[in-house]
Amino acid sequence: MFVSDIGEFGLIELLAREFGIEYPPGRDGHQRGLRVGLGDDAVVSEPREGSAIWTTDTLVAGVHFLTGRTAWQDVGWKALAVNLSDIAAMGGDPDLALVTLMLPAKFRVEDAVALYRGLHEAAEAYGVTLGGGDIVRGPAFSVTVALSGWALTPRVGEPRIMTRNAARPGDLVAVSGTIGDSAGGLQLLRDDDGFETDAARCLRSAHERPRPRVSLGKTAARDGVRCAIDVSDGLVQDLGHVATASNVEIRVDAVRVPLSAALHETFPGRALGMAISGGEDYELVLVAPSRAIDAVIAASDTPVTVIGEVVRAHSPHVAVVDETGREIPLKLAGWDHFAKR
Amino acid sequence: MFVSDIGEFGLIELLAREFGIEYPPGRDGHQRGLRVGLGDDAVVSEPREGSAIWTTDTLVAGVHFLTGRTAWQDVGWKALAVNLSDIAAMGGDPDLALVTLMLPAKFRVEDAVALYRGLHEAAEAYGVTLGGGDIVRGPAFSVTVALSGWALTPRVGEPRIMTRNAARPGDLVAVSGTIGDSAGGLQLLRDDDGFETDAARCLRSAHERPRPRVSLGKTAARDGVRCAIDVSDGLVQDLGHVATASNVEIRVDAVRVPLSAALHETFPGRALGMAISGGEDYELVLVAPSRAIDAVIAASDTPVTVIGEVVRAHSPHVAVVDETGREIPLKLAGWDHFAKR
Repeated sequence: MFVSDIGEFGLIELLAREFGIEYPPGRDGHQRGLRVGLGDDAVVSEPREGSAIWTTDTLVAGVHFLTGRTAWQDVGWKALAVNLSDIAAMGGDPDLALVTLMLPAKFRVEDAVALYRGLHEAAEAYGVTLGGGDIVRGPAFSVTVALSGWALTPRVGEPRIMTRNAARPGDLVAVSGTIGDSAGGLQLLRDDDGFETDAARCLRSAHERPRPRVSLGKTAARDGVRCAIDVSDGLVQDLGHVATASNVEIRVDAVRVPLSAALHETFPGRALGMAISGGEDYELVLVAPSRAIDAVIAASDTPVTVIGEVVRAHSPHVAVVDETGREIPLKLAGWDHFAKR
Repeated sequence: MFVSDIGEFGLIELLAREFGIEYPPGRDGHQRGLRVGLGDDAVVSEPREGSAIWTTDTLVAGVHFLTGRTAWQDVGWKALAVNLSDIAAMGGDPDLALVTLMLPAKFRVEDAVALYRGLHEAAEAYGVTLGGGDIVRGPAFSVTVALSGWALTPRVGEPRIMTRNAARPGDLVAVSGTIGDSAGGLQLLRDDDGFETDAARCLRSAHERPRPRVSLGKTAARDGVRCAIDVSDGLVQDLGHVATASNVEIRVDAVRVPLSAALHETFPGRALGMAISGGEDYELVLVAPSRAIDAVIAASDTPVTVIGEVVRAHSPHVAVVDETGREIPLKLAGWDHFAKR
């Protein structure tokens, strides 16, 4: 059955029923955490005080994922996860997601349901409300999530937000988890790998089911980290964003970049390259004085590894150095949608 | 020059420069109304107290507008306007927009700039901040706006929000402006009209440059209106959403539906049909006791016309009746993206 067989409102009704939401909403219809939920002109939150955080990200079939190789449920998970990662990088608490689907007329209803199942799983895992959105016809599949959240705000004083422009000479640079696994997983998908080893499956999962570091972000903001970014375009390119916004040089020790055993095993010799330019890791880079980084390492269950430091510079720069302190020449091959390759 | 020639970041830089925003943001970069603006992982508002309102809407080339006939600047205006209309229908105050563009590689940079010019014009006209978003490659053009705003909240008491489920028997049904002009303009565009008459240009403008009723929505919420919807899918279909959510019947007097002279002149005999099923008017339907409707009419510069009333019903229904009180049979031909026609 195709979405053209049941129509836009039929699809919305079916998806709402699937996930236990009353649609169209009745007189007393109510969604958790919302004053007005799915099915009105807009959604309205309960009144509260604070700084709101907003972000949006899109996945397009054939551009952001390989149609036919990635399950629709995983596309749904990732569509929310990449936005959660942006809120995590600000140290915020995610709250409400709006979902826009662009679907070809011949998109299968069961694929739309699977996609929503993945969105719903991520929403449940991270305590986010799915508040509706828009479904439109189009020539290809895309899913756009707009996610709102709230900045960490102490009872007294200013909101604690982590930005890209707050790196200072002397700060340490640390990163969560391991880097490069997602690039490894993508390479295996492109190679049509059979995913017969645990290592291969682990890399695939890193690519298709990233676990954004929301809890770590909140801990870091609370413990005094004022500069962060998530690793989405590639480690070096994302550090470049911090270097530019803060007007500093960032020096990374290549040997300290945390690489997984799975990546080493599957791509011996290529692991570091994948880590520094691969992208889509959705790990957090934290930049702060050592006292703050130490506090985060002590307080968090997530592994956090110091990989470098911030130094004064005349112009923004990222240097990856080897054991001898010599700079490794880099082709800055991060992700730019329209760049010629 | 195509977007593929300057890349994603090149395009963002160019658009930011065009509209006076520092990108990448420096150490002291600041956007009006925001604590963190364009160029970080997410945008962050100044702290405030209230109920946040959220909505999102997408325009796809070839689906929502006719490529080559509608100027990109008008597409930009409309992309924000349709979202403003949703906030207006809640009685809210629009605040911040995130814009997602999906662009084919061969999309022209000057068209992207024209599109942003239209977005910027609408943002200026309605006091909205453009806070960034996402630019992705895709097989076709689409623009998705996610718009946030704030519910009208008195110093003491609950937020005043207009919803679809608050219509009560005895309420009057009123509508702003005139209805059907947008459908008339769309028909002229489809007919490749030369737009040689003032009337034709007026209809085209209603279709391409809708003026969402934000100020009227706020006045209505303040003056006690508790039920509203914007006319986007077609007058009868949108009244149907209210009837369903409120479980009432809505009776509309056909002769009272406000039609413009331009529509009568251009489409004699077809004007009422365009009004009741055309869609994309972005006028507001207000449903409230006569005292509240009278107060809005007295307080607002926008023309507001009573067109019908709410009556008790066993099941939701919309009836359009002629001068004799007889129900006019309707093909409920509102807008459903995937419906077979």
